[in-house]
Amino acid sequence: MPSNPTRRETLTDAGLRVLAAHGARHLTHRATDREAGVPLGTTVNYFSTRTALLAGLGHRIFERLAPAPAEVPPPGTAPAAAYIHAIVRRTTEQPDLTLALFELRLEAARHPELARALTSTLERSYAQDVTFHSQAGLPGGAREVALLHYAVDGLLLDLLTVSINGRHDTAEMVELLVRRLLPPT
Amino acid sequence: MPSNPTRRETLTDAGLRVLAAHGARHLTHRATDREAGVPLGTTVNYFSTRTALLAGLGHRIFERLAPAPAEVPPPGTAPAAAYIHAIVRRTTEQPDLTLALFELRLEAARHPELARALTSTLERSYAQDVTFHSQAGLPGGAREVALLHYAVDGLLLDLLTVSINGRHDTAEMVELLVRRLLPPT
Repeated sequence: MPSNPTRRETLTDAGLRVLAAHGARHLTHRATDREAGVPLGTTVNYFSTRTALLAGLGHRIFERLAPAPAEVPPPGTAPAAAYIHAIVRRTTEQPDLTLALFELRLEAARHPELARALTSTLERSYAQDVTFHSQAGLPGGAREVALLHYAVDGLLLDLLTVSINGRHDTAEMVELLVRRLLPPT
Repeated sequence: MPSNPTRRETLTDAGLRVLAAHGARHLTHRATDREAGVPLGTTVNYFSTRTALLAGLGHRIFERLAPAPAEVPPPGTAPAAAYIHAIVRRTTEQPDLTLALFELRLEAARHPELARALTSTLERSYAQDVTFHSQAGLPGGAREVALLHYAVDGLLLDLLTVSINGRHDTAEMVELLVRRLLPPT
């Protein structure tokens, strides 16, 4: 398998644009080649099956959503709300990534092989979040990270697709979720 | 437009099975006819466009997720956690409905006309939840209903697709979400 990392990023970024703009039904090796502007057959050289391609997109989403080093607050000083605000900002500024992740999760519900690959990506990311949470001295632990994760996923679904209530007060909602879901310090 | 309500339910239920099992890409009038076991052309008689069909599916999801009258606790006596447990049980027992709703919301992110129809369905359902919440004497109001909605949507995504953490302790998670997101009585 070829291993040019830059080319790999070009291809997965193109695949994510296809996935977000047109849905899983249009995500093929050829559509990815076309979107990336590379010769037909390039994507299949890097990802031999559709499942491998979808799993690669899942992996790439988390690479791109990872905060830049400067954005990670030093341990012990991060107010939890600012941290979650930053996550919501980062994800809503790149709506394609989050929409593509929702698409991948639904596709995984129908495809056990993709489910295995995506589960391992999600579990790794969750473990990193738990480590970060603890190193940053935020109140609560793994359980609270899961609660926040559910709530933020649901909020993002509301912000990026259709809203249950006209999306009023996103900042206030984030504030409340953090204040209530984390135990008092 | 024909208006046989039973036939309409047969068709939308068939469409929801297609949507959950195969994703939005396979949801067509013909696939719905086949799944429902009715003559080709029946679905298009009831839903003249693909958007009308998808909007009809969204409407049907909420009809089917509505609690049976016996399940609605009498005002003032419902512990909030039992109510949310019942929602999670009702939705996870019918995973097709919730998966189909996620598919519809993602499809709506790409199709403004579907977004308008689905928004009106979601907003109506949210307004009913707010009314129920208040009539049942549960603590908090519209804001708390939204917070719970986000968190439960994210939890269901985790339960029905791929999980961030192996889905341990769903009952405990529900308990915690309710206890923390609703203000103390």
